[in-house]
Amino acid sequence: MKFRRSERLIDMTNYLLDHPRQLVPLTFFSERYSSAKSSISEDLAIIKETFEQRGIGILTTVPGAAGGVKFYVKVSDEQAKPFVDELCELIAKPDRLLPGGYLYLTDILGNPSIVQKAGRIIASSYAETKIDVVMTVATKGIPLAYAVASQLNAPVVIVRRDSKVTEGPTVSINYVSGSAKRIQTMVLSRRSIPQGAKVLIVDDFMKAGGTVIGMISLLEEFNAQLAGIAVLVEAEKIQERLVGDEYISLIQLTEVDVKEKLIGVKEGNYFNKP
Amino acid sequence: MKFRRSERLIDMTNYLLDHPRQLVPLTFFSERYSSAKSSISEDLAIIKETFEQRGIGILTTVPGAAGGVKFYVKVSDEQAKPFVDELCELIAKPDRLLPGGYLYLTDILGNPSIVQKAGRIIASSYAETKIDVVMTVATKGIPLAYAVASQLNAPVVIVRRDSKVTEGPTVSINYVSGSAKRIQTMVLSRRSIPQGAKVLIVDDFMKAGGTVIGMISLLEEFNAQLAGIAVLVEAEKIQERLVGDEYISLIQLTEVDVKEKLIGVKEGNYFNKP
Repeated sequence: MKFRRSERLIDMTNYLLDHPRQLVPLTFFSERYSSAKSSISEDLAIIKETFEQRGIGILTTVPGAAGGVKFYVKVSDEQAKPFVDELCELIAKPDRLLPGGYLYLTDILGNPSIVQKAGRIIASSYAETKIDVVMTVATKGIPLAYAVASQLNAPVVIVRRDSKVTEGPTVSINYVSGSAKRIQTMVLSRRSIPQGAKVLIVDDFMKAGGTVIGMISLLEEFNAQLAGIAVLVEAEKIQERLVGDEYISLIQLTEVDVKEKLIGVKEGNYFNKP
Repeated sequence: MKFRRSERLIDMTNYLLDHPRQLVPLTFFSERYSSAKSSISEDLAIIKETFEQRGIGILTTVPGAAGGVKFYVKVSDEQAKPFVDELCELIAKPDRLLPGGYLYLTDILGNPSIVQKAGRIIASSYAETKIDVVMTVATKGIPLAYAVASQLNAPVVIVRRDSKVTEGPTVSINYVSGSAKRIQTMVLSRRSIPQGAKVLIVDDFMKAGGTVIGMISLLEEFNAQLAGIAVLVEAEKIQERLVGDEYISLIQLTEVDVKEKLIGVKEGNYFNKP
């Protein structure tokens, strides 16, 4: 059965979006549609151009016998900015304020559409970075970690506060939480990270960064390497920031005033990165 | 700026896949591409046909002034079966056996590609059902719940074992876990489910069903309605199954023999549903 170009373009678009960072040989498509490689090449040129113009992502061609095409998500800053601005407005609503200056973000983190967009933006930052594993900590960071990981074609590993029988043998460490200065435990399944893996840490919220530091210590136990740190929201500048500048954030709190019921929010450092 | 048909088809495909269960007016597309509505209608007819032929999903047209198109994910059984069979093979590996007859599934649940495919298959079952909220319990069910919810255009709420300050005021219940017969607690943020909401419960694994029963009791506290129950894996038939037949499962364990290092796996009831 032969396919018309229009059908091929629709199905190829779906296939590529569904297989980010995976090398797809031209022969795969030419067999799938019983079409000549030259036609497939023309299709891919149209898709490449449209993906770039509409800010969907980048299609790179790997030449040679073992070659093919690879799709990377790449959200442009012009597309990311309005989304982050909307998110800022959503977060600045005073009824999010909880006792102790905490923010209620559960509804935002529970919205798959928001989480997916945020995940695509974060993944765009690491499009050219080798990432073998995305790591997060239970519970609230999990959805964002998956959204990022699905665009980077990497598995997710979830650090827990307590060990569970269904995790099998685990490695556990103690660390000092940054803001509360309490000693806490982190547990990760022994099978979860291969030696030497390059790991991207993703979390929903970073205050002093103690949890992130804990995850970095855990990486050492696995002989794995830190490849990056990305958070949705970082708290307002506090004196003892434990993590240096090697992280990206989409949103930064500038002020949280429980008495005045005020939440100040601005764009995170994502847009300032070189 | 005018767009050629090929560009429109690519961008519309991306847009529709990204906005499942949302009514998109024809005027939205005709303005987006500065194209006549008649051209957009032709484009959509091509997309509809290709989506159906390739098992991507269904495009329904809502006529009238307030009309437009809606995309629903719909994985055909012919596409779902090979995926579920592969998953069965993956789960049947003896090194998954943990003490107590538990199974290590963390790697499978950490694979975004597997989780997304499973999510699409489950969502296909509820394409025509009104679902306002997808509910799951921390931690392992979260990724699958998001995968389902993103296709159903519904928010996810996460039931926890303990209350956290960042959840705000919570509702908590006690329930008896089915297999271990222990009394356990479940906590859910008060703001998370609106009155009368239709709720789909999603989890990774169901043994006797105690956790699911707990979640159903919690729904009553919120005056919400159960719309369905979906799990990735259900345990082998045990005598006191607490949940009736109102659930779907993709995979069913038939036998777990720790001594003989044997795991028996077959398709769940998903394919037997009317």
